[in-house]
Amino acid sequence: MAGMNDHPRFLRFALRPLAALLLVGAPLGASSPPARPLSSADIVAAAPADAWVAVPPEDLLVVDLEGGRQVVIALAPGFAPVHVANIRRLARSSWFAGITVNRVQDNYVVQWGDATEKKPLPEGIVASPPAEYARALKELGFRAMPYRDAYAERVGHAGGWPVASDGTLAWLPHCYGMVGVGRNLAPDTGTGAELYAVIGHGPRHLDRNIALVGRVLSGMEALSALPRGTEALGFYKEGTPRPAIVAAHIAADMPAAERPAFELMRADSRSFADWLTARANRKDDFFIRPAGALDICNALPPVRATLRK
Amino acid sequence: MAGMNDHPRFLRFALRPLAALLLVGAPLGASSPPARPLSSADIVAAAPADAWVAVPPEDLLVVDLEGGRQVVIALAPGFAPVHVANIRRLARSSWFAGITVNRVQDNYVVQWGDATEKKPLPEGIVASPPAEYARALKELGFRAMPYRDAYAERVGHAGGWPVASDGTLAWLPHCYGMVGVGRNLAPDTGTGAELYAVIGHGPRHLDRNIALVGRVLSGMEALSALPRGTEALGFYKEGTPRPAIVAAHIAADMPAAERPAFELMRADSRSFADWLTARANRKDDFFIRPAGALDICNALPPVRATLRK
Repeated sequence: MAGMNDHPRFLRFALRPLAALLLVGAPLGASSPPARPLSSADIVAAAPADAWVAVPPEDLLVVDLEGGRQVVIALAPGFAPVHVANIRRLARSSWFAGITVNRVQDNYVVQWGDATEKKPLPEGIVASPPAEYARALKELGFRAMPYRDAYAERVGHAGGWPVASDGTLAWLPHCYGMVGVGRNLAPDTGTGAELYAVIGHGPRHLDRNIALVGRVLSGMEALSALPRGTEALGFYKEGTPRPAIVAAHIAADMPAAERPAFELMRADSRSFADWLTARANRKDDFFIRPAGALDICNALPPVRATLRK
Repeated sequence: MAGMNDHPRFLRFALRPLAALLLVGAPLGASSPPARPLSSADIVAAAPADAWVAVPPEDLLVVDLEGGRQVVIALAPGFAPVHVANIRRLARSSWFAGITVNRVQDNYVVQWGDATEKKPLPEGIVASPPAEYARALKELGFRAMPYRDAYAERVGHAGGWPVASDGTLAWLPHCYGMVGVGRNLAPDTGTGAELYAVIGHGPRHLDRNIALVGRVLSGMEALSALPRGTEALGFYKEGTPRPAIVAAHIAADMPAAERPAFELMRADSRSFADWLTARANRKDDFFIRPAGALDICNALPPVRATLRK
């Protein structure tokens, strides 16, 4: 994933650090020679197969934008089951085909939907889903990070997801690349026909005010580099060409040869614990002062594309 | 500023909330009728002249990109005086003219400099500036925010700047739109000839590892919407056209009629205190659950363009 292990260094200076000073992942008291110091990228590369969990094809929304760009979104039925069911149904009814990106607000969101607001929703869509803004923490397999968060009492991970919590309830945080459901005023919660992706510093004040339904796993730049809208809230001006969504499918419905496949690193794996520690304590020839901390939005679980199957 | 008061709502639903439930800026115990509830946007609009501080023209770097786009950066001589002096000298020697954007890494940075690495620096440039990564807190006029931060013991503001601190030292945080100095390995600190702007979730692990020298005040979208580089670290592929910087000036040197002018809201103003409170406690017809908190990177002081003078 972009931005994970990198820093602004001089152009063309892209050597890997050879002598990171912090040992990560080396077993304590091991009598074998010291393990090669591991960066967070090393840890991802070395993670064993059981550190990864495949995103079920039923949970992958594959969005084709005009110009041949593809965005793949992992859906989160564990957090927003009714909204996700709606989104699957919209995809399976080809409803998303022909809608457009209508809003690109810098440092905030890209939002897509039916600009005419007249396209009838397919049969079976739950018109007013429940407010799936939080769920019970206790069945979630939550692993807390030992770092502060500005917004929540606790932050950490469950499965392949970032999670914020008050100790009782748990919710997905509004981080870069997270996908949510545009809605009107409360108590309306949106159907899922209008979606947005976060393209700026995490607008965490939206947490528990809107249903988050997923995370962009690939193709983020097809959204984040779109021209910003010039009107209020970043909407495109009337008459401006809007980037069109050509098609959107659930991966499970696609022919095997065309089906993208991704894995997320499991929050309960040793590799993930090591990865968090390495991310929070970067120290190498470049990093002088390790942060000793990590923001949840800088700790979205590693993703890898796997063979289409 | 984009993204300050907005939320993802249905397309074309852009009514201003009429009945925000949280009173902001209403004097306690006032006997006059309750003040009209103020949103953070209202507070900015109503802020008196003395709540604003003009950015000195000597501290404004005006960067013209090809295609007629302009980016205006407020420099921070209070935090990185030697680096800022270098940048002024580079601008005044027309050194930046003709360099290019070489790196655009999604959710991280846009970086520009001399792709040939052969352009000689002008006379008088300090080749190895001191590591201006932090300064003493005590003379800064620091106003702490009452909210947690993942990375620093305290966060708040001074003048028109966001500030992080350990109680003794103070530094600028790596937030969206902040500008820093590309460097090689420590103890090198970079001259200021290669700069980057943050275009993603604040990479705060860079704090105190690199010199921050400013903040983009306008034209951010000319950087953040650039095509992402396809090579390692987001560098553009060799042979790909790179967005050129046509010119860069210090505003003080520009003809009065062409000179951009900006003001920042003062951290020690009543308006700013009200603005922070309103930002941390959004509640209106849309917001169901106020966050009760605010990340420093979601609290960059309001900016306004003023008449050119």
